[in-house]
Amino acid sequence: MADTLRGNLVVAQSGGPTAVINNSVVGVVDEALRHACIEDIYGSFRGIGGILDENLMDMRKEDPRVIRGLRSTPGAGLGSIRLKVKDHHIPRIVEVFKAHNVRYFFYIGGNDSQITSHDIETLAAQEGWEMRVIGIPKTIDNDLPETDHCPGFGSAARYTATTIRELDRDNHSLPYVYVVEVMGRDAGWMTASAQLAKVDERTGPHVILLPESPFEPQKFLDMVQKDVDRYDRCVIAASEGIKDKDGNLVAAADTVDAFGNRQLGGVGQTLAENIEERLGVSARWTKAGAIQRCAAHLASPSDVEEGYMVGLSAVRAAVEGENGKMVTLVRESDHPYKCTTGLVELEKVRGRTKDVPLEWFDADEMEMKEEFVKYVTPLAGPIPEVSILDGHFVGKKCEPWQDPTKK
Amino acid sequence: MADTLRGNLVVAQSGGPTAVINNSVVGVVDEALRHACIEDIYGSFRGIGGILDENLMDMRKEDPRVIRGLRSTPGAGLGSIRLKVKDHHIPRIVEVFKAHNVRYFFYIGGNDSQITSHDIETLAAQEGWEMRVIGIPKTIDNDLPETDHCPGFGSAARYTATTIRELDRDNHSLPYVYVVEVMGRDAGWMTASAQLAKVDERTGPHVILLPESPFEPQKFLDMVQKDVDRYDRCVIAASEGIKDKDGNLVAAADTVDAFGNRQLGGVGQTLAENIEERLGVSARWTKAGAIQRCAAHLASPSDVEEGYMVGLSAVRAAVEGENGKMVTLVRESDHPYKCTTGLVELEKVRGRTKDVPLEWFDADEMEMKEEFVKYVTPLAGPIPEVSILDGHFVGKKCEPWQDPTKK
Repeated sequence: MADTLRGNLVVAQSGGPTAVINNSVVGVVDEALRHACIEDIYGSFRGIGGILDENLMDMRKEDPRVIRGLRSTPGAGLGSIRLKVKDHHIPRIVEVFKAHNVRYFFYIGGNDSQITSHDIETLAAQEGWEMRVIGIPKTIDNDLPETDHCPGFGSAARYTATTIRELDRDNHSLPYVYVVEVMGRDAGWMTASAQLAKVDERTGPHVILLPESPFEPQKFLDMVQKDVDRYDRCVIAASEGIKDKDGNLVAAADTVDAFGNRQLGGVGQTLAENIEERLGVSARWTKAGAIQRCAAHLASPSDVEEGYMVGLSAVRAAVEGENGKMVTLVRESDHPYKCTTGLVELEKVRGRTKDVPLEWFDADEMEMKEEFVKYVTPLAGPIPEVSILDGHFVGKKCEPWQDPTKK
Repeated sequence: MADTLRGNLVVAQSGGPTAVINNSVVGVVDEALRHACIEDIYGSFRGIGGILDENLMDMRKEDPRVIRGLRSTPGAGLGSIRLKVKDHHIPRIVEVFKAHNVRYFFYIGGNDSQITSHDIETLAAQEGWEMRVIGIPKTIDNDLPETDHCPGFGSAARYTATTIRELDRDNHSLPYVYVVEVMGRDAGWMTASAQLAKVDERTGPHVILLPESPFEPQKFLDMVQKDVDRYDRCVIAASEGIKDKDGNLVAAADTVDAFGNRQLGGVGQTLAENIEERLGVSARWTKAGAIQRCAAHLASPSDVEEGYMVGLSAVRAAVEGENGKMVTLVRESDHPYKCTTGLVELEKVRGRTKDVPLEWFDADEMEMKEEFVKYVTPLAGPIPEVSILDGHFVGKKCEPWQDPTKK
């Protein structure tokens, strides 16, 4: 290419990690190695913090087997950061880029990271520092706009669906109410994915609570009671970010919860305690926390591939002269599932999020509709099958059991 | 065989399920089908409750593919129960057995179930009802005596180690203190298994807290501080049943915790809150709850096989005339790992539990010793490998970063 830009490359990871985020790093490194215009390949230690503090790691010096191994390693291999990048950070970043002749920058992250990438691109242009900045999407929350879905989400969906399908068998063994607190404070994509766990009408999840749909305490309790009456049990997938009709979190620290009680724990504990108190049925809860975003052993096959692909595509686009874009995932077909990459201006992404469309949610039955299941199935990949006995009961031959210690 | 006992068979599951408990049901059914002396094969719906209430399922009428599918299905396929069986239940059980010509009874469970089996065997003999009662061990807690280990434990160990290895990568990305609350109220076998997650000195778990080793608040905080100083972070595997030197639970509902605070949540929350308060470092926690005992997708290969094998062996032993025994697992060799089954008198098992030997725990370093790792490795099976970058930092070229908004 005539106008090839020569220089060094920086790749960085930001925010909460995912099960597949390292695939994007490996994609960037693998593709960078194919282009002579890219000289040094630096991994920034702990996101933007590694640029501010000049903690840059020479990726060419790493053992290629270690790089390869990152493809099945969860967490951010380069380290991550939760720093909210502000205007005053940007000049320093460009300063460090100039000092290290960085002409290519790839930032793997969610909404905030795309804003940061956009700001860096803008300032570098203003200062006449020629460089290519490409955002690489990553978020278990799946809430970036302009892309069919986000790398990291499919694996989180697979984790949620697999875990709830297994919990449902446990719950069937010892029937009670079980509340699974699912990550995703503002967007309910992960919680919605619990729908994939369902095998038939009897099996859980019996109730799904999304942050996008206002939480109504009485309606919720009525639904739980209905399931307990029908099935002797109820499995609930509840987003940690569910809100009441006024937009207040159902479970925020040191507040009065939606039921009117003083709030002690998270959503799982709050719902379970209220169910026990109001309905008089035994309720348990689980808060898997960060486990939900790092279960690489359950990574979705398509997510692993796409996580890698967005890394490759980002470098290719940059070498071809693209700048100020985010890589997107474009669904070409559902059967067979086929997905390619595209590009969108960072300007169009910045500051925008994508909620679960409420038309995909049946608020009366508190379950996801078929449209959502169709959307998420290829992203999550296979969910382990379970076997459920028919139960052919034989005729009774004794008098009904009366416990002599109870009257 | 001359003295073959003809009649029907009942198999039942009890207590908290495991990832592999259904393998024992399938083992019983498969072996029973090979013996003409065994006529009907009944699965008791929800443990001993299904016998008391005569809810017996004809297993011969189930689709063989469904039975086969149980081998990878977590939870108790027959249903389970938490009923504490007492003396007055036993005559009713024998009554139902007589009514249905039950001559073979296999009870898959933990400590309490072995006592129940023993009581049934004793009363049947007293009443002159010839039958064979064999206990089949099952518990994620691994606390049954007289057996090298218990079916269900290996998979729970694999889950614990895999999850903590993955969480450790997440924690390395965004360093803070992470407390993983692990099941096992009285025995620390599952928590101890976290040791398998460790890749090298830097990686977690950095602290293991067993119920068998008295919890010392200050010593614990000092160790966490030491790890934060060394590694910028600390991953803690804490048994839900840790106790102080007086034997009081560190986190019991509505009590004052070991730090002197009013106790609000479980062990994970209690430790995390105290670390934040006392050490001023960010701490998070997870309580995976029942997920830990039903993660069939992470079932240990040896555990799956042994879970099946104890079912087969139980039926073989009974047909051969054994009675009032529990099947045991006998480790023949470590390299290669080889395990067979044995039998032990129920009388020798009843009322006894097996703690983690404290000589396998380094209480100063709060980690498990090599003897334990050797014991548990073949039981848990493979833990997914992770890749860790060396980090070859390049020379700095700018002045150190000074945030202009901070003085």
